[in-house]
Amino acid sequence: MSQALFNHINQFTSLNKESFEQMMLRFDLLQVDKKEILSSAGSKCDQIYFVVKGCLHSYFVDDSGVEKTVKFALEDWWVTDFLAFHHQTTTEFYIQAVEPSIVLRINYSDLEELRQKYPQLESYFRNVYEIGYGAAMMRFKYIFNYSKEEIFTRFCEQFPEFVNRIPQYMLATYLGLTPEYLSKIRAKKLS
Amino acid sequence: MSQALFNHINQFTSLNKESFEQMMLRFDLLQVDKKEILSSAGSKCDQIYFVVKGCLHSYFVDDSGVEKTVKFALEDWWVTDFLAFHHQTTTEFYIQAVEPSIVLRINYSDLEELRQKYPQLESYFRNVYEIGYGAAMMRFKYIFNYSKEEIFTRFCEQFPEFVNRIPQYMLATYLGLTPEYLSKIRAKKLS
Repeated sequence: MSQALFNHINQFTSLNKESFEQMMLRFDLLQVDKKEILSSAGSKCDQIYFVVKGCLHSYFVDDSGVEKTVKFALEDWWVTDFLAFHHQTTTEFYIQAVEPSIVLRINYSDLEELRQKYPQLESYFRNVYEIGYGAAMMRFKYIFNYSKEEIFTRFCEQFPEFVNRIPQYMLATYLGLTPEYLSKIRAKKLS
Repeated sequence: MSQALFNHINQFTSLNKESFEQMMLRFDLLQVDKKEILSSAGSKCDQIYFVVKGCLHSYFVDDSGVEKTVKFALEDWWVTDFLAFHHQTTTEFYIQAVEPSIVLRINYSDLEELRQKYPQLESYFRNVYEIGYGAAMMRFKYIFNYSKEEIFTRFCEQFPEFVNRIPQYMLATYLGLTPEYLSKIRAKKLS
């Protein structure tokens, strides 16, 4: 099940099978049910997750009690509260499985040790974060450039498989829309 | 003028002065005028900038011709279009000086060579991007959680110096507000 991570690391850097197998001893492989919560707001952010199969999302609960998604992680993506993970502080986000998922999990101190032992991991995460950070800037461009209806239409055109996998109410908050607004747009498109 | 970068690198990793001086031969030190554009939408994104003094911002021009800021970079921050830089493709963003600034610039292939020669740089940029990526998630939380007025109020409370340095119309678009809306909020606060 860890072959996915091995392949992903080797897309960006070069790590041999023996080193990878040693590394894997520090990871937990989890089978996660749909809607299972892996990490909760208010707890110390000590773990980071790699999605082997399925989908996780990171969300917060807003002041009126609505869950709002700030990030999805499909296969080959990492998720945590990166800022709280970096500073080893309390997170304001939940991490939950959107689908039944298979996930690799590692804690901060183990990952730090691995990064020191296998410097290729620094290069790997530098690449992963560079892409994630850049993609976040593009998402701001989406949100700031288009009308609410255009945001949804363009997102569907660009990521059709993603849109089909994700429940509508989660997708709505991820795009900065209300679920009610998204229902209206969808109804309009179907009519 | 490069002492700032040396200090910043050594906040996250350990690089000696001799290695740093070798590295510096690959950087250009630029004195940039206020409003000077360093990189334009439509060009290949081949360079990344470190702010020694001053402030840069990254913006796009929306469909109605309005400039909208997606990122500010004050002292000790890096800026480029990280996704286009990673893939070495055309950028959709401009990078411009908000104030008269002193900036270090390096191109992609030189940085790649340096990263291979000095693996500490991989660790340094992993840290820088981890923080930047995490901060972007927090910004989505801001934008998705609060009313427009609250976004501005909380931002002012949290980053008062920043708010005083940045022109109001840039700050407005960065927070997902229109400049007109921000003027109204400010007038209301002063009345």
